[in-house]
Amino acid sequence: MQTQTLERLESNVRTYSRSFPVVFTQAKNARLTDEDGREYIDFLAGAGTLNYGHNNPHLKQALLDYLESDGIVHGLDFWTAAKRDYLETLEALILKPRGLEYKVHLPGPTGTNAVEAAIRLARVATGRHTIVSFTNGFHGVTMGALAATGNRKFREATGGIPLQGSAFMPYDGYLGKDVDSLDYFEKLLGDNSSGLDLPAAVIVETVQGEGGINVAGLEWLKRLEGICRDNDMLLIVDDIQAGCGRTGKFFSFEHAGITPDIVTNSKSLSGFGLPFAHVLMRPELDKWKPGQYNGTFRGFNLAFATAAAAMRQYWRDDTFERDVQRKGRVVEDRFKKIAAWINERGTPASERGRGLMRGIDVGSGELADKITAKAFEKGLVIETSGQASEVVKCLCPLTIPDEDLLQGLDILEDSVKEVVA
Amino acid sequence: MQTQTLERLESNVRTYSRSFPVVFTQAKNARLTDEDGREYIDFLAGAGTLNYGHNNPHLKQALLDYLESDGIVHGLDFWTAAKRDYLETLEALILKPRGLEYKVHLPGPTGTNAVEAAIRLARVATGRHTIVSFTNGFHGVTMGALAATGNRKFREATGGIPLQGSAFMPYDGYLGKDVDSLDYFEKLLGDNSSGLDLPAAVIVETVQGEGGINVAGLEWLKRLEGICRDNDMLLIVDDIQAGCGRTGKFFSFEHAGITPDIVTNSKSLSGFGLPFAHVLMRPELDKWKPGQYNGTFRGFNLAFATAAAAMRQYWRDDTFERDVQRKGRVVEDRFKKIAAWINERGTPASERGRGLMRGIDVGSGELADKITAKAFEKGLVIETSGQASEVVKCLCPLTIPDEDLLQGLDILEDSVKEVVA
Amino acid sequence: MQTQTLERLESNVRTYSRSFPVVFTQAKNARLTDEDGREYIDFLAGAGTLNYGHNNPHLKQALLDYLESDGIVHGLDFWTAAKRDYLETLEALILKPRGLEYKVHLPGPTGTNAVEAAIRLARVATGRHTIVSFTNGFHGVTMGALAATGNRKFREATGGIPLQGSAFMPYDGYLGKDVDSLDYFEKLLGDNSSGLDLPAAVIVETVQGEGGINVAGLEWLKRLEGICRDNDMLLIVDDIQAGCGRTGKFFSFEHAGITPDIVTNSKSLSGFGLPFAHVLMRPELDKWKPGQYNGTFRGFNLAFATAAAAMRQYWRDDTFERDVQRKGRVVEDRFKKIAAWINERGTPASERGRGLMRGIDVGSGELADKITAKAFEKGLVIETSGQASEVVKCLCPLTIPDEDLLQGLDILEDSVKEVVA
Amino acid sequence: MQTQTLERLESNVRTYSRSFPVVFTQAKNARLTDEDGREYIDFLAGAGTLNYGHNNPHLKQALLDYLESDGIVHGLDFWTAAKRDYLETLEALILKPRGLEYKVHLPGPTGTNAVEAAIRLARVATGRHTIVSFTNGFHGVTMGALAATGNRKFREATGGIPLQGSAFMPYDGYLGKDVDSLDYFEKLLGDNSSGLDLPAAVIVETVQGEGGINVAGLEWLKRLEGICRDNDMLLIVDDIQAGCGRTGKFFSFEHAGITPDIVTNSKSLSGFGLPFAHVLMRPELDKWKPGQYNGTFRGFNLAFATAAAAMRQYWRDDTFERDVQRKGRVVEDRFKKIAAWINERGTPASERGRGLMRGIDVGSGELADKITAKAFEKGLVIETSGQASEVVKCLCPLTIPDEDLLQGLDILEDSVKEVVA
Repeated sequence: MQTQTLERLESNVRTYSRSFPVVFTQAKNARLTDEDGREYIDFLAGAGTLNYGHNNPHLKQALLDYLESDGIVHGLDFWTAAKRDYLETLEALILKPRGLEYKVHLPGPTGTNAVEAAIRLARVATGRHTIVSFTNGFHGVTMGALAATGNRKFREATGGIPLQGSAFMPYDGYLGKDVDSLDYFEKLLGDNSSGLDLPAAVIVETVQGEGGINVAGLEWLKRLEGICRDNDMLLIVDDIQAGCGRTGKFFSFEHAGITPDIVTNSKSLSGFGLPFAHVLMRPELDKWKPGQYNGTFRGFNLAFATAAAAMRQYWRDDTFERDVQRKGRVVEDRFKKIAAWINERGTPASERGRGLMRGIDVGSGELADKITAKAFEKGLVIETSGQASEVVKCLCPLTIPDEDLLQGLDILEDSVKEVVA
Repeated sequence: MQTQTLERLESNVRTYSRSFPVVFTQAKNARLTDEDGREYIDFLAGAGTLNYGHNNPHLKQALLDYLESDGIVHGLDFWTAAKRDYLETLEALILKPRGLEYKVHLPGPTGTNAVEAAIRLARVATGRHTIVSFTNGFHGVTMGALAATGNRKFREATGGIPLQGSAFMPYDGYLGKDVDSLDYFEKLLGDNSSGLDLPAAVIVETVQGEGGINVAGLEWLKRLEGICRDNDMLLIVDDIQAGCGRTGKFFSFEHAGITPDIVTNSKSLSGFGLPFAHVLMRPELDKWKPGQYNGTFRGFNLAFATAAAAMRQYWRDDTFERDVQRKGRVVEDRFKKIAAWINERGTPASERGRGLMRGIDVGSGELADKITAKAFEKGLVIETSGQASEVVKCLCPLTIPDEDLLQGLDILEDSVKEVVA
Repeated sequence: MQTQTLERLESNVRTYSRSFPVVFTQAKNARLTDEDGREYIDFLAGAGTLNYGHNNPHLKQALLDYLESDGIVHGLDFWTAAKRDYLETLEALILKPRGLEYKVHLPGPTGTNAVEAAIRLARVATGRHTIVSFTNGFHGVTMGALAATGNRKFREATGGIPLQGSAFMPYDGYLGKDVDSLDYFEKLLGDNSSGLDLPAAVIVETVQGEGGINVAGLEWLKRLEGICRDNDMLLIVDDIQAGCGRTGKFFSFEHAGITPDIVTNSKSLSGFGLPFAHVLMRPELDKWKPGQYNGTFRGFNLAFATAAAAMRQYWRDDTFERDVQRKGRVVEDRFKKIAAWINERGTPASERGRGLMRGIDVGSGELADKITAKAFEKGLVIETSGQASEVVKCLCPLTIPDEDLLQGLDILEDSVKEVVA
Repeated sequence: MQTQTLERLESNVRTYSRSFPVVFTQAKNARLTDEDGREYIDFLAGAGTLNYGHNNPHLKQALLDYLESDGIVHGLDFWTAAKRDYLETLEALILKPRGLEYKVHLPGPTGTNAVEAAIRLARVATGRHTIVSFTNGFHGVTMGALAATGNRKFREATGGIPLQGSAFMPYDGYLGKDVDSLDYFEKLLGDNSSGLDLPAAVIVETVQGEGGINVAGLEWLKRLEGICRDNDMLLIVDDIQAGCGRTGKFFSFEHAGITPDIVTNSKSLSGFGLPFAHVLMRPELDKWKPGQYNGTFRGFNLAFATAAAAMRQYWRDDTFERDVQRKGRVVEDRFKKIAAWINERGTPASERGRGLMRGIDVGSGELADKITAKAFEKGLVIETSGQASEVVKCLCPLTIPDEDLLQGLDILEDSVKEVVA
């Protein structure tokens, strides 16, 4: 594999090619192939972008059909037949069955863009500035979204511009198991000189992906919704990583029975790895004036085609989500077993997650890195997350065949045993 | 055409569907077709995103081949064969022949993301904050890029958060024909109490697309480069709209013989309307640490495939750019004639532009809107730009057949005559 | 008393004249006289500015002597004999006996100015932005200081500009009696994605005056100092209200045995109610360049004269501070008794404070206001503080005669009994 | 003279003691005396703070009387007889005769505090953010005021926090003699994508003191007022240095016949060098809520006493202002002569100013420093201003005896001749 030109021409900012220093050429569902023909099982799946696997045949067919018909590929925010089909399908298969009524904003096709749009709308709609985010939250790296992102690696790379407009609260469990971290938030809200200005909105991930597979309890989410209602703050669920079925429901917040005012989706929304994002908002919040938020690639038509196909294929009934839940339990069980094994060797470790968004916290980034490096040697692509990269996380395709899932889990278990032993 | 669901479900923010309230279904090179089968000549071309036309057959074939091979569609910033081919082709066909040496940063696949990355890099590399932008400049709407964007429509939609880190200078010609606006900039730089903090960088479009097809003189650009060198500021050329051949050269700054420190490209970079962007930087400026700027869709592999195909098809020699220049003169001549005709009727009007990025300033947005509305009735999609939407602009595909170009110009001329008469 | 011109000409922003709507004409130690000749005992004392009483005869004599000699009244930051005497006296009577070595910055003569200078120095010295402040902290209302002030009344009056550069932590006791609030701070510091950028400094009041007479425990302060050292953050003690003997020591932080990197003093620093402030800093932190922070009234010479006289009169030995401590116990005992009495009537109330900075928390601003209004009727000037104005606070002159102190306490007790009964 | 303790204990930030490294002890009208008994003529006068001279006997008597009566020295914003007298005298002797109707805000007793309050009020009253300031403007160094101050020395000392909420326009004459710099401002205002957000207010000095004795033309000021009215922006005149008679009228804007919406005064407002400031505002702009802007030393009662005495002594009729104008012409004539003499030696030099606020621009800070250093040797205290300290400026007491004025001018002329020769 020739990598010199890549090393010479690509910016130092590159990151995954450091963990996985091979040149990939092909991929199918949960398997990647490199230029030497070696196959890997993929437990990363585009960090949650490939919920339906690489080159999903149903979506691929929809894409090829669209291309062959010379459908509109790029049309700014033109009305197109593909956009109409996308919106109608979203309404019919996703929103209505869940009792949700939202309008759809199609910003630039990335998660950070959706977050910027959501935050800005919340400010415009409420006339207030502050967006409450949570410890270990990740919402993107453009300046507006970065202000709500906790990670110092990104925050320190602004070249010295302080990030403004956000305040961080402790996420569920941050203050220990016996403390409801919302007590602190509520105290600050009710205190006229707490230093917390009355917020426009709260932005929350129900499960924090980049932050370390931290799982918000369902009661905690329900209480958070109540606090938002009581204090006239909007509730934004950033469902970019946890959405589109990852946790076993289309929207991750369905588990908690809450109704956000604003929702952001991206990553697996197109289903095929195509850049795509939308913002859902309660209709009465749609305070945008025409053209007030724009972007060249807003409403990517190829993504409309694949996204609509994905909804038709996987979300007509609950077959798919039940299957995801079943696989989630498989991973959960194995991860618990692995964590227990590590614990027995004197290293504290624990499993956590929801659906197929799961991790093993092994306590240190050093150990987690050793495990994932060993797994890669053995043919498994798997990454870490968390503030110190201390969590080995599984974000395999939801469509992964059971044999691949089990093989991947076996590799991970073997890797742990070799590294920890 | 059924548009009710679109009107009901899409946010008020939608804009082009107000000027062109039809549902488009197909497109080929410079022609769009709506659901009723009506054809339109496209002088908008994705606001400069479709320099090679809709569904360009060469690029389409490359895309289909890639899809059929089950190539990697999404891989975060994995090394892939497609990425390597893109970087090598860019170096061989674009950079080397022009004597340019750059490293490539692949941020999220949108222009605003490239601008955010470029600005941040400039700050990190210089340790200073201020980015100098120009009157009527447009660089995107995420918070970091928006600070450098002049348009109040966007700036006022932040929900009250002031934009920080930029200072605006008068663009070439802004102070009148006889004043070199850089005199003012240079005076502020040399004055210790001018209120202008020493800038990290200057960001400039050589031709301002959204700002009204304002054309910077080549001497002015050369002088600007000199001022940057003299004051240790980086020169960023935002070539998102004017690049990729639009002005008759691959990079719009080639006309001026300048070498920016940082370049942003997007829009027509993929060639096929796929979301894609890169930042080029002098190698010694590459101060990024691994992973310090990320994004799920950075380095979109389908776009690597089409972008490389576009370079091979159009940029192996100067045939294409000479053809663009020729068509540019055709538009220029006709626009001058139309402007003269309007002038004769007592309404001040003038032509301006470079290559196939051209406009007629008709003095008021009201008049420009009437003209473009009339043109749409007659089958031409054309839009306005400028601070008051007073410029009717032509951004037709560079690949437009001569007959379509002439027909489009005829429609425009007829529309002007009907409206102004 | 004629108040119409005052009402007509003075801005609505006026506040104390609403609680005490009389025209005062004279004052002596702890007694105020209004234009009708009515006398009041003063438990407000300029919100801690008149620790040595109104028109203290020792300081008054020093002031008259200085004026009669035609000493320099205003000299920008000229060297004057008065400044030299001030600095030498400060060193000899205050710093050296306490084992402190500081350089002295004389900014504009107000507390907020001292805080702005202190914060800025911390940023310059560390190269970091964030200043950690605490819930219910008050540090001034100019924009730099306001960012570290918790109170929404002031924060919301910026006309929409978000305050930047600070982060708020829970003050001692904020999370309940059994929780050490520094656990939370330390967790955020040690977490790379907590959303807390590494701070330049911590700014803290050892007793929060405006915030409600909240008293930081001595162990908590000691631990805070340790956290600062461990994390390379500067410790700024804002001793503007609690300093100059108010808590029974010259510096309020002496009780905890800590050594701040930077100290701000103002309010009672001149001793006579003259505008005056200084910033003390460890010598190696003095990174200021000549003239980099200025202000017309920096180093007010009349204040040098009275401040030096105050140090000579009250701080040559420990007689004064022991007397303050004694009086503090008198107030403490009475306040406890009053609080207990209120408690017995079913309204939760409690006493808190240190030295002669003491309050009774009566649970609601409404009740506290009734008590202070009643006390004013009876001839006692006393105010509330706290986020909901729920704390009746005593900041009487430290020099108050015992008979005035007891009479004031009697009035307060009577007022409470009339109001609560 | 012993200066070691001063050098050791005072922060490096000290500045005037570097130009004038002596210890001053006494002062009377326009004369300073150092510890060795040497006398100096004072052309600095507290940078415009001592318009009525050092230890003015009329004001001194008022101060002594007040002190002897044990009047209120410090009372937060209590109503006092002294405050009432101040407000009534201001109305009777200053506002009414000039046809002005203003309410008075008494913020903290410094210029920067008054500017912070003025700016904030403008934002609150208009609901907009941007404050337009001018090149070389100086308005103070606390963070809110600093944003409107042009000087990099101060702006760079924020420790990296970008200043926000202001935009700088070219002051009168900045673009050359033949260009009305307001053309540029007006063009930006009328351009929807100029990058200038619609401003809340304009803040302007009619003569820029720190900026280099730059004098705004009366027509320019009149036009500026018109632009403010036309664009619904508030006009703030910062009259801190140029007010209180310095230009030959009480308010410097009287010359132009304009009526600002908001006025800031400080420096010579107390008349005796006591810290003092107020903000005047049109009554309908008084949007402050009670206590929304506070400060311990707001409304300094000793300053009320001296300020009222100063108004009674100097502003009952036009005798004083005519005398100032006469002296202004004396300085103007001599400065023109000196400038001409320098010009003849081949160094470009020019005189400028209004009333007794005058300077000679000698083209370089190096030369200006030599001149002022030489003058100090000869017994004249005089300072420079301007972006490169290139202007030797005269801000002598308005009450300076003619013989002192002439002697000072002689010393300056001699110094110039020695240095330039």
